[in-house]
Amino acid sequence: MNSEAFFKLTYGLYVVSSFRQEKMNGFIANSVFQVTSEPAQIAVVCHKNNFTSTLIKESKVFSVSVLEKDVQPKIIGLFGYKSGNKEDKFAKISYIKGKSGVPIVVEDTVAWFECELVQTFNVGTHTIFIGQIIENALLADDKDPLTYAYYRDIKKGKAPANAPTYIKPS
Amino acid sequence: MNSEAFFKLTYGLYVVSSFRQEKMNGFIANSVFQVTSEPAQIAVVCHKNNFTSTLIKESKVFSVSVLEKDVQPKIIGLFGYKSGNKEDKFAKISYIKGKSGVPIVVEDTVAWFECELVQTFNVGTHTIFIGQIIENALLADDKDPLTYAYYRDIKKGKAPANAPTYIKPS
Repeated sequence: MNSEAFFKLTYGLYVVSSFRQEKMNGFIANSVFQVTSEPAQIAVVCHKNNFTSTLIKESKVFSVSVLEKDVQPKIIGLFGYKSGNKEDKFAKISYIKGKSGVPIVVEDTVAWFECELVQTFNVGTHTIFIGQIIENALLADDKDPLTYAYYRDIKKGKAPANAPTYIKPS
Repeated sequence: MNSEAFFKLTYGLYVVSSFRQEKMNGFIANSVFQVTSEPAQIAVVCHKNNFTSTLIKESKVFSVSVLEKDVQPKIIGLFGYKSGNKEDKFAKISYIKGKSGVPIVVEDTVAWFECELVQTFNVGTHTIFIGQIIENALLADDKDPLTYAYYRDIKKGKAPANAPTYIKPS
């Protein structure tokens, strides 16, 4: 298996969030993509050990925030490398609540999608959540989204161990 | 629903191919992404009306070719906008056959993946195929992959009607 070949697949970087009563959490996802346009449905790939994964299964809602290219490192650090079990990530960034009550990160965000969970698929270590979009917004049409290639090549960032694209250092 | 917000989701552009005996076909996909790393699995979203979709269900194998940024327009034209029922697309481009017999486009390709179909998920108008990678290769490490944003903004390309990201002209 050539592990370098996987770096030629293109991804964006997103914060996927969900909640349980007063508890909110989110994580940095790269595998987010539209699966149908009628109705508009989005898929998100999430590690089963991820706390947000548990919250999505319980609440049946999640949000996706598309990060902007010049995102502050604090947002990547907070949502990419810290467990929400220990820390209230939302205390440190700007967010709104969607009509379902789900938190939506709006800081350094170019667009967001609020989704109702309609299907859950098991693919082993990870789960694919299919969400139907109930609301969305474009916040900054003039700004480019952050891509995984830019994050890796320019910002020298690495995938967290729970990412579908994680490659063990050899 | 804000349809412009969907343009902030990031995708690459790929040729996904499959076959039935002597008949080979492929189509341009944007929704291709890794879902797990152990084992290495890739997901591909495909419209149910797509001829390649039928071939993948029958043969249980498919290939993904990551197109290079400066791909020739003939490849997009051939695999993006023509039906394989009427035309032999593979007569006009360079390809190899993988160990499963599946055709793999190698012209203007930076990397490829040969996959065995392990799961099929129904999401309405489209199907998500989950493939376990049985072979892969990096053909051009020095070349960037084609992204959907580049294709749309620089090359002024539009999504074919069967794409998950297709938006009806208003």
